Amino acid sequence: MTDKVRLAPIGLGRWARVLARGAQRGDVVELTSCFSRSEEKRAAFQEEFGIPKSAATLDELLADDDVEGVMITTPNDTHRDLIIASLEAGKAVYTDKPIAHTLEHALDVRNAVHKTGGLFAVGHSARRLSGARVMKQWIEDGSLGDVSLAEANFSNERGLELTTDTWRWYADKSPGGTFIQLGVHHADNLQYLLGPVAQVSAHARKLYTKAEIPDAVMAILEFESGALGYIGCGWASPGIYQLRVQGTKANLMYDLDFTHWDESHQADEWSSLVSQGYGDMTRRDVDMPATDMFREQLDEFALAIRGAATVEVGIDEAIRALAVVRAALESSTQNGKAVELKPLLEGVGVSP
Amino acid sequence: MTDKVRLAPIGLGRWARVLARGAQRGDVVELTSCFSRSEEKRAAFQEEFGIPKSAATLDELLADDDVEGVMITTPNDTHRDLIIASLEAGKAVYTDKPIAHTLEHALDVRNAVHKTGGLFAVGHSARRLSGARVMKQWIEDGSLGDVSLAEANFSNERGLELTTDTWRWYADKSPGGTFIQLGVHHADNLQYLLGPVAQVSAHARKLYTKAEIPDAVMAILEFESGALGYIGCGWASPGIYQLRVQGTKANLMYDLDFTHWDESHQADEWSSLVSQGYGDMTRRDVDMPATDMFREQLDEFALAIRGAATVEVGIDEAIRALAVVRAALESSTQNGKAVELKPLLEGVGVSP
Repeated sequence: MTDKVRLAPIGLGRWARVLARGAQRGDVVELTSCFSRSEEKRAAFQEEFGIPKSAATLDELLADDDVEGVMITTPNDTHRDLIIASLEAGKAVYTDKPIAHTLEHALDVRNAVHKTGGLFAVGHSARRLSGARVMKQWIEDGSLGDVSLAEANFSNERGLELTTDTWRWYADKSPGGTFIQLGVHHADNLQYLLGPVAQVSAHARKLYTKAEIPDAVMAILEFESGALGYIGCGWASPGIYQLRVQGTKANLMYDLDFTHWDESHQADEWSSLVSQGYGDMTRRDVDMPATDMFREQLDEFALAIRGAATVEVGIDEAIRALAVVRAALESSTQNGKAVELKPLLEGVGVSP
Repeated sequence: MTDKVRLAPIGLGRWARVLARGAQRGDVVELTSCFSRSEEKRAAFQEEFGIPKSAATLDELLADDDVEGVMITTPNDTHRDLIIASLEAGKAVYTDKPIAHTLEHALDVRNAVHKTGGLFAVGHSARRLSGARVMKQWIEDGSLGDVSLAEANFSNERGLELTTDTWRWYADKSPGGTFIQLGVHHADNLQYLLGPVAQVSAHARKLYTKAEIPDAVMAILEFESGALGYIGCGWASPGIYQLRVQGTKANLMYDLDFTHWDESHQADEWSSLVSQGYGDMTRRDVDMPATDMFREQLDEFALAIRGAATVEVGIDEAIRALAVVRAALESSTQNGKAVELKPLLEGVGVSP
């Protein structure tokens, strides 16, 4: 492709580099500029990824007609203002998950998306992992039968390593700690697989991190289908990424070695998907077509800018995932009593 | 050993046969008699296991001086009366888990154990699986560091196969369905590993079974240590038996192919225990010493009769496991609001 789609990262930290590597593995995206308040970071990022220019201010970036879309990887509590400014400047917007740290911010984003009619995508990349894709296929084609239970865990050691100079330390910027950072992936995955969540019971605990946020969270989700789901998230142990679904005809168990999360073109090689069938308990390795979640989502976003693709995770899907997180945190303050999603979703204009 | 300990099974169904095979793999136990109300079952059981005699009534069995101890595998709601009658007849008692289906029954059993001073053991065999034993060792010697999360699942297809002529069909005989039958194992395992549970949040659903009992249950346990635990139990999918513990220094993940549950001398061969260490994310297979949970627990019970061993799971441990089940069922009627174990345990005289 000679006429690549021109994107510009906003926020040039670790995650921006993961996404830039993903984009550069494809041939759809060209990184045409970038923005951080730090001149040093801009220079380093330009050099690392061969980006021809950078912007010294947000206004400068948004005024650049070369930039068709932005990729936002700044702290959660800054997403809203950056998304709205970018949409109002006519840029397509890709933002990292979660869409925001509060539903109030998410509502403002939703209003801006609808007012501007701009293209908007959220990086719920994990549903693109091959294990989730194959699970979805088995559910849709009936191979799993009727699903009663689904379990997910996403944990790592980050909570043990936080310092006061990182935004993730603070409860007002990263409410829920491990659950809003990691759990929100499974809140999307499980709804992708099993449909909308009706209510959530949860407990959140701050055990071994020195930061303000919880490092141990467990939530039970009741789906509108009646099935039950579980999400466990720790921030005080080595990394885990697992997803299991139990159906009347079969179970599927997915396990990803978290070490290989960032380099998503290699993740499948460090993953396993195992099935067990009813009446034939032999465990079988299930083939997983090769995926590259970060490249694929950025390619999709870029192609959607040109009208050649549809964004899979847009505003409403992202809000549904955030609503599960917020309901879990609310339930935790009520000692586990289930919190319904309907009023939360209606409050931000999403049809439950 | 020429002077084997003489035990007699009460209830001669599938589980009595699993235990009889376990006992006969060892050289401590001799099955000297057996009892079921069905003459046909008695005859078949005697022939299958080479048992010299059987009793046509419970009184006849309990009056037999050859019988040193009984092994009860009858329906949960019949445990109490059989245990009390056996203890009062001077027999040592081994009963299958759960100790009873209600805490009221468990209290009566506890009073009888204390009044008679008899030997009493409950078949919480799962903690004897090599994976649980190694986890316990890693926790005690500090290799796991501080534990924040523990997850367990025990599920199988039984709920899809129940018929009205089996006691497990009925909510009054088997309250909680999959959770009292399977979940109670993990209620014991997790307390064995992490100490007493303080409170439980749970949701129980009846989804695909035709029986009266739930076939999908999820519970979140808060331990007195502050750690969180999860137990998932399904009765409408192929079998799963898993246990994972996450600590600040390492994770351990245990997985048993449930197909090989009954033949416990082979279970280790169909199990895996994998560790991940902090700062060294390489997954490693952990050695598991060979175990045979059913043989070992019956050997221990038999040796304890002769004063040569101590029973590991007695009345109070068994009540603690049942209390987690009962708290979960109570929480489920309160839409997940956590139920404290303290009042439940105090109600049956167990110090919380």
